[in-house]
Amino acid sequence: MTLNEIKNAIRNVPDFPKPGIQFKDITTALKQPEIFHQMLDLMAEKYRHTKIDYIVGIESRGFIFGAPLAYILGCGFIPIRKQGKLPAEIISQEYALEYGTDKIEMHKDALKEGDNVLIIDDLIATAGTAEAAAKLITQAGAKIIGFTFAIELSSLQGRKTLEKYAPVFSLIQYE
Amino acid sequence: MTLNEIKNAIRNVPDFPKPGIQFKDITTALKQPEIFHQMLDLMAEKYRHTKIDYIVGIESRGFIFGAPLAYILGCGFIPIRKQGKLPAEIISQEYALEYGTDKIEMHKDALKEGDNVLIIDDLIATAGTAEAAAKLITQAGAKIIGFTFAIELSSLQGRKTLEKYAPVFSLIQYE
Repeated sequence: MTLNEIKNAIRNVPDFPKPGIQFKDITTALKQPEIFHQMLDLMAEKYRHTKIDYIVGIESRGFIFGAPLAYILGCGFIPIRKQGKLPAEIISQEYALEYGTDKIEMHKDALKEGDNVLIIDDLIATAGTAEAAAKLITQAGAKIIGFTFAIELSSLQGRKTLEKYAPVFSLIQYE
Repeated sequence: MTLNEIKNAIRNVPDFPKPGIQFKDITTALKQPEIFHQMLDLMAEKYRHTKIDYIVGIESRGFIFGAPLAYILGCGFIPIRKQGKLPAEIISQEYALEYGTDKIEMHKDALKEGDNVLIIDDLIATAGTAEAAAKLITQAGAKIIGFTFAIELSSLQGRKTLEKYAPVFSLIQYE
């Protein structure tokens, strides 16, 4: 299976969530077992020889790739969630949206100093959420080993922002 | 590893999301690789000899168990999501909350007649969401093979509602 076959399995939905946006719909890839399996194996392969303690997945499509990766690589899984979802004591980080701001949260006791962490989400665009995740992990004293995304929208240059923290890997790229 | 060790890894958070509720926090289990691995293997084991085409995971904690299970069992993964998240044409189903109602959605072309489907979520309480998922899947003409949950709050008897559709399996039970 080639990366091109994976790319062909991703559906383009025009004008979602609003006019002019070409939405990359991964659900058509996830429902094909060989494609989903291969996406995960290719992501895992990249880190097969890296010491990773935790995969941090960003809610909620980050869970779809992050949780299986934790299984495959034998790491723990830590969810970073939207505001108000985590039950115990949290640390939170604001990030900018097109209009206004939003917040993500992580349990305060999820990570400790020196933990090696890989951050996963389905897609990198401007990298606002992933950078907020990186700030939470840094605040907890843990070390970011890398960022992994199924899809990268290259022209938005989110990669530049994240490479200040750690290397960035994406499986499929679009302009 | 015993089920008791898994149960001990789940944290009880009192008074979340509101006074009087004893919230079962799975994040403390997910971050222990052996525990998370074992939970998934025990779930998968149950269906090792069953023909399943798709694992349907309910947003968003259902993704944490459903996506790895799809990987382990070699099935496709289909997300059922909260309102307004899926980009293509959807079917939707309302369900009752304590006060008011909410909606979940699935892509209209996600399933076809005769597909064998396993529904996954992290927890079964009154089973409102899982029943709404079952209705979506039935509406699509697919066959529900079973429901699987990491945690069952037995005294709320959600199981009774779901067993009208298919057998229910839970890993850990609380009163």
